[in-house]
Amino acid sequence: MPASGLPFDDIRALVASMPAGNEAAAGEAQARDSVLVKPPGALGRLEDIAFWLARWQGKAKPQITKPTIAIFGSDHGVTKQGVSPYPSSVTRQMLDTFAAGGAAINQICLANNLALKVFDLGIGSPSGDITIEPAMDEREAAGTIAFGMEAIADGADIIGLGEMGIGNTTIAAAIYAALFGGDPTAWVGRGTGADDAMVKAKADAIARALDTHAGHLKDPLEVLRRLGGREIAAMVGAIVAARHQKIPVVLDGFVTTAAAAIVQAMNPRGLDHCIAGHFSAEQAHHKVLERLRLTPLLSLGMRLGEGTGAALAMGIIKAAAAMHNDMATFTSAGVDNRD
Amino acid sequence: MPASGLPFDDIRALVASMPAGNEAAAGEAQARDSVLVKPPGALGRLEDIAFWLARWQGKAKPQITKPTIAIFGSDHGVTKQGVSPYPSSVTRQMLDTFAAGGAAINQICLANNLALKVFDLGIGSPSGDITIEPAMDEREAAGTIAFGMEAIADGADIIGLGEMGIGNTTIAAAIYAALFGGDPTAWVGRGTGADDAMVKAKADAIARALDTHAGHLKDPLEVLRRLGGREIAAMVGAIVAARHQKIPVVLDGFVTTAAAAIVQAMNPRGLDHCIAGHFSAEQAHHKVLERLRLTPLLSLGMRLGEGTGAALAMGIIKAAAAMHNDMATFTSAGVDNRD
Repeated sequence: MPASGLPFDDIRALVASMPAGNEAAAGEAQARDSVLVKPPGALGRLEDIAFWLARWQGKAKPQITKPTIAIFGSDHGVTKQGVSPYPSSVTRQMLDTFAAGGAAINQICLANNLALKVFDLGIGSPSGDITIEPAMDEREAAGTIAFGMEAIADGADIIGLGEMGIGNTTIAAAIYAALFGGDPTAWVGRGTGADDAMVKAKADAIARALDTHAGHLKDPLEVLRRLGGREIAAMVGAIVAARHQKIPVVLDGFVTTAAAAIVQAMNPRGLDHCIAGHFSAEQAHHKVLERLRLTPLLSLGMRLGEGTGAALAMGIIKAAAAMHNDMATFTSAGVDNRD
Repeated sequence: MPASGLPFDDIRALVASMPAGNEAAAGEAQARDSVLVKPPGALGRLEDIAFWLARWQGKAKPQITKPTIAIFGSDHGVTKQGVSPYPSSVTRQMLDTFAAGGAAINQICLANNLALKVFDLGIGSPSGDITIEPAMDEREAAGTIAFGMEAIADGADIIGLGEMGIGNTTIAAAIYAALFGGDPTAWVGRGTGADDAMVKAKADAIARALDTHAGHLKDPLEVLRRLGGREIAAMVGAIVAARHQKIPVVLDGFVTTAAAAIVQAMNPRGLDHCIAGHFSAEQAHHKVLERLRLTPLLSLGMRLGEGTGAALAMGIIKAAAAMHNDMATFTSAGVDNRD
């Protein structure tokens, strides 16, 4: 581990200084909503989405002209502990499949007209096996967070975050266990299709990791460095940078919300610019979302990762923005309003 | 009322003869799904949607090349009973707004690339006030059902049904009360924004209607004729015709499912080709969907009608079809499968 604590201090400063939303823009959006040609409140959550977009983009008429899905991939030393039915080789192969347009996420991005960006965080060089050592040293963790910050700086006006990494539901569950406490079995699930024995292996691995790193898990960035994966570190950076750049964030499922949990642990208002795309079928996700005080848009029993839940939710969010911006008003449409 | 019972008999025959699904196509779709490059079941409900499309289109690779939203509009004599905060004039004005592209449904159709068709079922000539008389005579009801059957025959490969009609949440609630029993108050809600007094007026109107038509509400088509509206009759026709034409159906909210309830009352398998687009915020909709054994795709607190819930759900369904048809397989992508 490098001696310098500076990089983490810089990150702490960026997390602490995440700006508040633009309430004037949100208020203007609410005023506009009240004259649109529909009964008040009739679009339900879609109206809240429009206000949320306005608040975090800082625009009364929020724009979604370049919606982007960013997927971060990495490998995990913990796979040595038999925590996934798939070999680690699949991480790289799936990134190749994203590039070739053959994965689930490619089809959703095409259907919803979303840009897709895929980032390889040293796939093939797994992070440390958390049962016996930290996943990353501080330089690596800080560098990966910074990489995630840079990755989104390309003009996206809303970003969906997702990931690919064989073994990373174990990594995410370890982070939840460290941040939220409780028995590791409460946070593990079937991931890509683990059987009972493998689910037990996941919980055992996490218990050993918590033991190995005991006494060093009070600081969320230390939790990330010791138990996390690079894709989760990068998503932490993306969430923080998006806030500074006025880019609302759509979170994917069980692994992506582990990055959100790190941010929230550092700043209780740190997720106000984030929407959860969906409830994952991973059993602990409901509990995680409750802790994060996020209510997902969708609940379709999905558990694929790749940003698929975020990308589907983005379709709903795009429609919400279109309605807010382009609907007629009672006056412009010449429709009689209620008394 | 015309003496002839023939038109209703023809409709009964069409409902009774609704064909079964194509299980071979659904089985082929399941076989294909099992080799797509993802863990088994990881797309959750989206996989079921692909099988459902295959079953009801009769194609292992279901096609969504012309998704269409059909909205049916009509006016209701029951508005004389003070059941809506909006005047009846709004029905026609909203159809004009659909034509001008200014409504919520226009924006969703643009965002999701859906065709939109709007049908005026004699707006301005309200159906009979159900508190004192039948909404329609048999010729009118049968003719309107037939109109709905014709309305969808234009090459759509999946259709979303919706409606517009001031007063029609009262009409839908009356149908539910007649079909499912129970106190009228159990089936009414705030519709476009009724206050407590108006909600009571809705329940009172339904109680009087049930009294007026007592003894004639065993036959679902009589329920439709006496208590229904033209938009609901047309949607009954659309649901039945779609089944015969191998067109899967996406239902909108509280009013649209009243048409579905009539069909189900006539044929317990009559909704197998239908998906509920969303849970409406109208309080009784959960109970209705339970009776219809439909689990909606979305739950976003919407209560607008216009087909908006169906059109948003169509975005999800389009993505499900795209994934099923266009994802690579483990073999074609060169991805290692689990042992």
